[in-house]
Amino acid sequence: MSAVTALNVKGLDTWLVQSGERFLLRTINSNGTPGAPNNGDRSKTESATKDLKLKLLDQHALLQSNHAKSVLIVLQAMDAGGKDGCVKALYGGLNPSGAEVVSFGVPSEEERQHDVLWRIHKKLPALGRVGIFNRSHYEDVLAVRVRNIAPPAIWRPRFEFFNAFEQELSASGTIIIKFMLHISLDEQRARLQSRIDRPEKHWKFRMGDLEDRALWKEYQAAYQDVLTKTSTAHAPWFVVPADKKWYRDFAILTVVTTVLEGLKMTFPKQPELQGLVID
Amino acid sequence: MSAVTALNVKGLDTWLVQSGERFLLRTINSNGTPGAPNNGDRSKTESATKDLKLKLLDQHALLQSNHAKSVLIVLQAMDAGGKDGCVKALYGGLNPSGAEVVSFGVPSEEERQHDVLWRIHKKLPALGRVGIFNRSHYEDVLAVRVRNIAPPAIWRPRFEFFNAFEQELSASGTIIIKFMLHISLDEQRARLQSRIDRPEKHWKFRMGDLEDRALWKEYQAAYQDVLTKTSTAHAPWFVVPADKKWYRDFAILTVVTTVLEGLKMTFPKQPELQGLVID
Repeated sequence: MSAVTALNVKGLDTWLVQSGERFLLRTINSNGTPGAPNNGDRSKTESATKDLKLKLLDQHALLQSNHAKSVLIVLQAMDAGGKDGCVKALYGGLNPSGAEVVSFGVPSEEERQHDVLWRIHKKLPALGRVGIFNRSHYEDVLAVRVRNIAPPAIWRPRFEFFNAFEQELSASGTIIIKFMLHISLDEQRARLQSRIDRPEKHWKFRMGDLEDRALWKEYQAAYQDVLTKTSTAHAPWFVVPADKKWYRDFAILTVVTTVLEGLKMTFPKQPELQGLVID
Repeated sequence: MSAVTALNVKGLDTWLVQSGERFLLRTINSNGTPGAPNNGDRSKTESATKDLKLKLLDQHALLQSNHAKSVLIVLQAMDAGGKDGCVKALYGGLNPSGAEVVSFGVPSEEERQHDVLWRIHKKLPALGRVGIFNRSHYEDVLAVRVRNIAPPAIWRPRFEFFNAFEQELSASGTIIIKFMLHISLDEQRARLQSRIDRPEKHWKFRMGDLEDRALWKEYQAAYQDVLTKTSTAHAPWFVVPADKKWYRDFAILTVVTTVLEGLKMTFPKQPELQGLVID
């Protein structure tokens, strides 16, 4: 068990939400490519992403072999924001036997009988493993707020509860990396429309997506609050321009790989295996 | 909920253990390449494997969209038999958000206070999802038998218990595909030795692997019993020659894809989306 870890975010200023700073989502161009190779040249960026996947594979093996840390990656975005796509990109650099994706939907009847962190806690990754949360406890200060599912007296204290929760996890060795995938209203329209226009994508479309779309401004304001209030040294938020999928993948792989390399893990020595010959 | 499903195994005779037939493991050449393209030409086989991954991606989307079946893939093998490698190969054809890998190790204190299917049941894939079991309940008639952890009076009835359990799952829509990855004693030696010789692979090596290796013959006999007694129309075993990793991947992808294509799934129609335009 380790102390609360301030993560290595060196070189990640492009996407990092500075702790304690008022964050303005509208200052981020969702179609931008900041930090990408050759000023955002697509093929150069895609080739860099490939290299990052190999680096991440190395880091994952180190994580598994050391068994001293776990990694929790939180993905939040508006509908069609690319969470599934990010999962696929991350898996390009993960050993699937040591990783898991957990999608949090509308809480079940049983889950609603508990505090909002109950279902979250049960799904946290064990030491040596990577867990990806497709949506998370943050829905309880996003959807719950915007859709008026609970009053402010209920959801407002959660910012502090979540910070404390994540601090405790960090103290137990969990590396927490949180992403908000930032797309534009117009990009969302195009992506939802393409799901409707292709029958094989219908299953990805929910009528509720349109209700949330109508609340776009309210969601953006709620996201801004989340980013401002819950980006910490031990569990920072990164906002990634996500209109361009190839850029988004590059950005998230850069962040995850950089944070893990910052742990400076090495393979544990096992002197008892030295010179062992099997017959 | 559907009836017990006899899976589509057409064209899979090469690997299928026929239900009710005495199976002899020594008749299978672990280094063989039966059924591979061009008599086992490596590059042709690898290219076929790539195509199979694309087909599996289609089948996984169908599975997710229909939400009427789940898929359980069981992987069993001697240590270093290639279970992790199979997982990686299968993930090349899966949407990671709709899949999960569960590794079953030595039972925990709590798990030992329950019947052997207790921990298994909790980890089964939900409708629309693919679950891969890295080891499974079958360890309770393999390791438990060979290492004398329980007497025959305890483990012998489990063959029937497991058949009944899998029949019930099948009746609830679970497609069960079980693989035994068959490697030779010599191939295992080479793989274990290479873990010892490379410090970055030490974490994959357990001293207990050598104890199990010393019990090779006993394990092979126990496997033969499992294969003979628990290969059923609704949950068949497939024995895959696995000394050649590129061939093994081709074989498992062929089996999984063929079984899923046999379900003849189609994308569900959603007439309410017809002509819907988002603004």
